[in-house]
Amino acid sequence: MAEQAPASKEPEAGAATSKNALKKAQKEKEKAEKKAAAKAKQLVVTQQQEPSEDLAKNNYGREVSLSTDAPEINLRSLSEEHIGKPVILRAWVQNVRLQSAKMAFMELREEGNWAIQGVLQVTGDADAENAHVISRPMVKWTGALNPESFVVVEAIVQRPYEPVKSCKVANYELHIRKCFLIAAAPAMLGMTLAAANRPVSSFNDDEELREEASQTAVPGATLLTHLDNIVIHKRAPVQQAISDVRCEIKHLFRSYLRSHGFKEFEPPCLIGAASEGGANVFTLPYFNQEACLAQSPQFYKQMEIAGGRKRVFSIGPVFRAENSNTTRHMTEFTGLDMEMEITKDYKEVLLMLEGVLLHIFRGIKEHCAEEMELIRSIYPGDELLLPEPGKEVRLTFAEGQQLLRSEGPEEYRNVRDDEDMSTPQEKALGALIRKKFNTDFYVLDKFPEDARPFYAKIDPASAANGSKVTNAFDFFLCGQEILSGGQRINDPDELEDRIRVKGVDPKSPGIREYVDVFRQAGVPPHGGGGIGLDRVVAWCLNLPSVHLAAYYPRTPKRLFP
Amino acid sequence: MAEQAPASKEPEAGAATSKNALKKAQKEKEKAEKKAAAKAKQLVVTQQQEPSEDLAKNNYGREVSLSTDAPEINLRSLSEEHIGKPVILRAWVQNVRLQSAKMAFMELREEGNWAIQGVLQVTGDADAENAHVISRPMVKWTGALNPESFVVVEAIVQRPYEPVKSCKVANYELHIRKCFLIAAAPAMLGMTLAAANRPVSSFNDDEELREEASQTAVPGATLLTHLDNIVIHKRAPVQQAISDVRCEIKHLFRSYLRSHGFKEFEPPCLIGAASEGGANVFTLPYFNQEACLAQSPQFYKQMEIAGGRKRVFSIGPVFRAENSNTTRHMTEFTGLDMEMEITKDYKEVLLMLEGVLLHIFRGIKEHCAEEMELIRSIYPGDELLLPEPGKEVRLTFAEGQQLLRSEGPEEYRNVRDDEDMSTPQEKALGALIRKKFNTDFYVLDKFPEDARPFYAKIDPASAANGSKVTNAFDFFLCGQEILSGGQRINDPDELEDRIRVKGVDPKSPGIREYVDVFRQAGVPPHGGGGIGLDRVVAWCLNLPSVHLAAYYPRTPKRLFP
Repeated sequence: MAEQAPASKEPEAGAATSKNALKKAQKEKEKAEKKAAAKAKQLVVTQQQEPSEDLAKNNYGREVSLSTDAPEINLRSLSEEHIGKPVILRAWVQNVRLQSAKMAFMELREEGNWAIQGVLQVTGDADAENAHVISRPMVKWTGALNPESFVVVEAIVQRPYEPVKSCKVANYELHIRKCFLIAAAPAMLGMTLAAANRPVSSFNDDEELREEASQTAVPGATLLTHLDNIVIHKRAPVQQAISDVRCEIKHLFRSYLRSHGFKEFEPPCLIGAASEGGANVFTLPYFNQEACLAQSPQFYKQMEIAGGRKRVFSIGPVFRAENSNTTRHMTEFTGLDMEMEITKDYKEVLLMLEGVLLHIFRGIKEHCAEEMELIRSIYPGDELLLPEPGKEVRLTFAEGQQLLRSEGPEEYRNVRDDEDMSTPQEKALGALIRKKFNTDFYVLDKFPEDARPFYAKIDPASAANGSKVTNAFDFFLCGQEILSGGQRINDPDELEDRIRVKGVDPKSPGIREYVDVFRQAGVPPHGGGGIGLDRVVAWCLNLPSVHLAAYYPRTPKRLFP
Repeated sequence: MAEQAPASKEPEAGAATSKNALKKAQKEKEKAEKKAAAKAKQLVVTQQQEPSEDLAKNNYGREVSLSTDAPEINLRSLSEEHIGKPVILRAWVQNVRLQSAKMAFMELREEGNWAIQGVLQVTGDADAENAHVISRPMVKWTGALNPESFVVVEAIVQRPYEPVKSCKVANYELHIRKCFLIAAAPAMLGMTLAAANRPVSSFNDDEELREEASQTAVPGATLLTHLDNIVIHKRAPVQQAISDVRCEIKHLFRSYLRSHGFKEFEPPCLIGAASEGGANVFTLPYFNQEACLAQSPQFYKQMEIAGGRKRVFSIGPVFRAENSNTTRHMTEFTGLDMEMEITKDYKEVLLMLEGVLLHIFRGIKEHCAEEMELIRSIYPGDELLLPEPGKEVRLTFAEGQQLLRSEGPEEYRNVRDDEDMSTPQEKALGALIRKKFNTDFYVLDKFPEDARPFYAKIDPASAANGSKVTNAFDFFLCGQEILSGGQRINDPDELEDRIRVKGVDPKSPGIREYVDVFRQAGVPPHGGGGIGLDRVVAWCLNLPSVHLAAYYPRTPKRLFP
């Protein structure tokens, strides 16, 4: 049986096929249909006129009645050995179309992008049980199923006349003999799957703009529409693929660190005071006191090292009460954090973090090639340029600034080695490094002390020569910071001095408790770093917003879904 | 060189050795010392009188100067091939003792329970560099190091005269030739490691009782003292072992589910309204609205299924604003949650959860045998009785009640099948089941509708016969609930009906959004369950409190550390 992809009920979901091709396909379908009908005629007594009793009545509807001999399958496990045999599939109706009163086509979709074509054609046999009769009412009922309903079908696997281009499973099709509705979708979806699978048209999350934005002529829907229709948003193959890549990045981070002797732990979210300072911190009433939501697990990672662990990591939520309504910001996001004992040099930390990130970037290229291709088909972008092993790019902050001064845009001719970079500066440097070193991923090391928090260890050599840089670094992807890390001060007196230099009172809440930990017992030198998972996912995949990388993006204006 | 474990500086940390044994050991030590001293005499010009210049001055102190040819080792990798060779070890001084002006013993501890004996003895050689001289000042300085300081030593690995019973590494010792202090502990620790490694004496977290409790004559310290000295608390081998088991439980949960096709996701902590009802929920100001902290990821797990995932799990924090000051409660804990599509029957969920828990219980017995033995030496308890494969115990709630009525204590003769069990009832049933079925782990299925939330699916067969039980279950360990799960209602109208039956308005905040998700598109039948990680850890290990299982326990009275 040869057939094009069934056209969607909604015009916007239709494939861009030329009229001629459609006509040709139509003719072929009719031919095939005639042939099949002729064959069916030999089998049944009469099917010209519908009998008063529907002989197929047990083969469709809401009352599930499947053959016990047919195995349940997943589309990804479908193989040659299934051909000609009955199988059972549970799936969503992605599209359905009545070809005629006697024939219907449907696309059935499983998790991810796994879809297969199903065919339903009036037929019947003369056996007493009428087990495999397909009647006109059954074809009509099936053809009227709402897209995104969940069904179970029993069908014979066949090879299609030609590959079904619109489905991931192109080389098999299902000749349906039973079809039952398990959960119905509404007649009118809030957003079609086809729309959900297009690029998001606008990330403006101003509720008042919602209607206006959705009425514009842009081909996709706004992020607000996506989030209002979270179920369809999530079912879109592009979102399924993004979730799969996110999953894999977490897995690669965890498995790499585990294999290097790191132990996972869970830092608390509820904390007594904000150790990183009071800005952008959520507070809440907590019985007779006030609690904060942790902005980073840094303090607790260090406490694990102080508490006798050599290497730890954590994966968990962190919170920022920042009223930033941009595509780069969220109020809750997932942090991938690690901390480790330093034996000789803080470069051990830098190399470990560089190692895990390269492991992640190379790993997703290898394990998620299909997903990344699908995502690129919706959100186009270049493949990540990664350094060859042994050719990793590690510049000092001063070298980065020098590059900007000597080869960067006019406005960066006077950038200073003792002042932090701005975001546009970072972007410009990223472009320079890509051109010069052929990589999107690189490290800037030895940040000036003014650009780092009080706990950053000053490079002793630099203190001697007066330049005062830190043993701290940032990692960049395409000119955007994805990781911040470095060596922490492990001596309580040195720490207090630095806190004072930064103009903070070492006795202030949160700070005092932090310093005191280093007074409880000898704490070895250590360092670590933190990665924002959502940003890494977004920037690896060229997504226009971190909100597409998160499962449930939290913004100052949105707490639902 | 034969030597007993060095006695701690604090009497309370000393091993319970008889006086005679000590005397004998003392004599042996002296003999060994004399022999070694005689040998040393042959090597050095004179060591009778300390030279005015300390020839060992580069071999100890704060300025690290190690030989470049000695490899860094971890104690767990120490082997025969190291014998007679120099190694470098970074570790904590667990105990140190000056045996005489010429000899010191120390215990050096790495992560976990890995400790080794180090010996330091006045010696010297005649080479020009004096590289391996050990002087009296060096022995004195080393002998005066504060316990829990962090040091790096260079030493020759030797086989001890007899195994060093007090150290995990009993068959090697380190003949130290260099010792440098990297991070000093205070002269007086807030709690000794030995005290930290004893059973917690009291879990009363009333701050006013702190002093009183710590002055009682009980051998251990109170939990408050432990938490005030979090660094030492965490370094105690028992806590390191508990953390290792916790780590392994998480890993086993995750790897089992991953291998069964489950995908990890991160539910949000910040939510717009409490879908499980408003009791015990933390709320906080969130820009121009109010946010809640999630009490469970249930709603979001279901949204993942609605959104096209077949099987998902999450590991993350959940919050309860419950003013319960017991050893069973915390305000923040780690939830292990899963949700899956049901194809034929909700028993698929039950069996998957039973499978993952048995995998966990069997896995820690296999992979954490040493840690569990160590923990049992501090917190004694029986080994978990697990059912043999194929002999898992699954009773219906009614069967459980029947067992209580017929074989349980007098007061449970009239328990009813349509009323939930109390905690004492659960305990009594646990004891009955242990006796009858020889297992600590079992399932109670088909809870009455009154005992379950509105989203629990009513067993259709029971609805027909009027008993109204749910397709929902609890798992128990030693009579304590560790898991709650079951089939959820996936039809929005059925869900609304149940919400009304429970006396809740389906349009109330949180509830309306919950129901609407099922109206967006067809959602397949599904179910799942949630495990409290802290409780599973505590009850697997016979810990007297979940606060010992958590990394940073959060109680109504404590947000630090």
